[in-house]
Amino acid sequence: MPEQSLPSWNDGPARRAIIDFVTRVTDPSHPDFVRPAERIATFDNDGTLWCEQPKQTQFFFAEARLEALAEKDPSLRERQPFKAFLEHDLKTLFNLGKQAAFEAVFMTHAGMTIEEFNAIAKEWFATATHPQLHRPFTRCVYQPQLELLDYLRANGFKNFIVSGGGIELMRAFAEEVYGIPTEQVIGSSTRTRFEVIDGRVQMMKIAELGSFDDREVKTENIALHIGRRPILAFGNSDGDLAMLRYAKSGAGARLALLLHHDDAEREFAYDREFRLSPLVEALDHAADFGIDVVSMKRDWATVFPT
Amino acid sequence: MPEQSLPSWNDGPARRAIIDFVTRVTDPSHPDFVRPAERIATFDNDGTLWCEQPKQTQFFFAEARLEALAEKDPSLRERQPFKAFLEHDLKTLFNLGKQAAFEAVFMTHAGMTIEEFNAIAKEWFATATHPQLHRPFTRCVYQPQLELLDYLRANGFKNFIVSGGGIELMRAFAEEVYGIPTEQVIGSSTRTRFEVIDGRVQMMKIAELGSFDDREVKTENIALHIGRRPILAFGNSDGDLAMLRYAKSGAGARLALLLHHDDAEREFAYDREFRLSPLVEALDHAADFGIDVVSMKRDWATVFPT
Repeated sequence: MPEQSLPSWNDGPARRAIIDFVTRVTDPSHPDFVRPAERIATFDNDGTLWCEQPKQTQFFFAEARLEALAEKDPSLRERQPFKAFLEHDLKTLFNLGKQAAFEAVFMTHAGMTIEEFNAIAKEWFATATHPQLHRPFTRCVYQPQLELLDYLRANGFKNFIVSGGGIELMRAFAEEVYGIPTEQVIGSSTRTRFEVIDGRVQMMKIAELGSFDDREVKTENIALHIGRRPILAFGNSDGDLAMLRYAKSGAGARLALLLHHDDAEREFAYDREFRLSPLVEALDHAADFGIDVVSMKRDWATVFPT
Repeated sequence: MPEQSLPSWNDGPARRAIIDFVTRVTDPSHPDFVRPAERIATFDNDGTLWCEQPKQTQFFFAEARLEALAEKDPSLRERQPFKAFLEHDLKTLFNLGKQAAFEAVFMTHAGMTIEEFNAIAKEWFATATHPQLHRPFTRCVYQPQLELLDYLRANGFKNFIVSGGGIELMRAFAEEVYGIPTEQVIGSSTRTRFEVIDGRVQMMKIAELGSFDDREVKTENIALHIGRRPILAFGNSDGDLAMLRYAKSGAGARLALLLHHDDAEREFAYDREFRLSPLVEALDHAADFGIDVVSMKRDWATVFPT
């Protein structure tokens, strides 16, 4: 029922491109038909599935973790970049740049088992709220994207997250919020180590980067984790351009979508100047690469779930 | 219908342990109930799902690849370890040991895109036969395990391969043979690199190890790719012990199974002495770790598909 699908998407080029694409690849009599096992869709998370302003949720979580750690070790309050995080000093955070800022945060998540981290993250998500949107972070997701994930699933797609965010933080809420199970979440990761504690095997998070899942690394991680080229990819920044181009480069029907945050009234308006995840090249060259630009202002009837 | 399930498994302790476990974790009124999303089963491949004698299938494939490469570069015939592979020199191969032998092979698979490798592998599987079993390698899989994979799937489990074998070689047949899609195949991997060739993005296989997926690394890769502790794990060598212990160490009902190759008549009988993947510690300490040993001779009514 394409007419009833995606109710929070305005009738326009983006919604039509999505429905047209899904209709073609799921119609066995159409030359663009794709068998279900190949219907892989990959989504960036920060800024694509949920809000990433004024900074990515990972940093809000890190501040809470650092507050807890600083109670035991007050010297953290004087050491950069932790001092900046604790003082909500966005300028210092922006000057670090995306990868350095995220990496510093990941290191503060080490020294516990994966299961312990998961419990801490779930507890934080249960109460933490976005300071400007005044709603839980897990309700700062985009309603049109929840509908798109559902629509793709109903059409035999398997949805994956491929994000620069920490893999375990996303896994703590992705199943409940997006219906995406942990094994379909790819993200930046720190390494883990096999340890036997009280006779039981535990996977301990250690302060060593596995991969920073951004730009070309996203495609390397798709190759490693999924082993197939996505037929649909959705992003919102230059960090997603490699993934969008990878999806579009395959044979047959392909769809690559780029969300443009141009709606200061309902969310935020930003692109080139956002230091933690700029959108420049992907926007300037979207047409060259066959990428469809989604305008939040024009294409979305609703932004957040009610 | 537990009575009709697993027809190639003899009625005995192993079959009963499997059916009892699956019945408990899928019964919503049972205290051991596990919701579907958590029903993760991990299987080793070589020696667990298919035959690994007299050497793992990866080496047969590598010989064919090396023959093709040696036509262009005859010096390979004189360079070790390639000379040993080309001359089917098992002694030299065994002396290398598992990781070094596999790593040497992986490096010969570099220099092409993932999609090119996949096509070569599929072409090889279409015609290559096992020299002693006289059947295609893809028919050297174990019938009881095909039934077990089906039985678990029918009970809401998600099956994963977690093997020392090369991730892309397994992905070339796992879907067709085991019903396991590429994204549920974890294996040893070499790195890939984003390249633009004739304007299209390709993931190029490069000669650099990502991970050798054996022993404790199996549990690290489970943490990275799956992000959940399996509730069922099945292996056949010391290389699987960490994974079996990881599965058994979780809370709630757990099943860890170890296949013992004790059937020289229908397959091969080996354990301690198999240099490419010995079974010593896991067999000696199975009871200590709560691992159920499956005897091929006693527990399997049939070994190979007819």
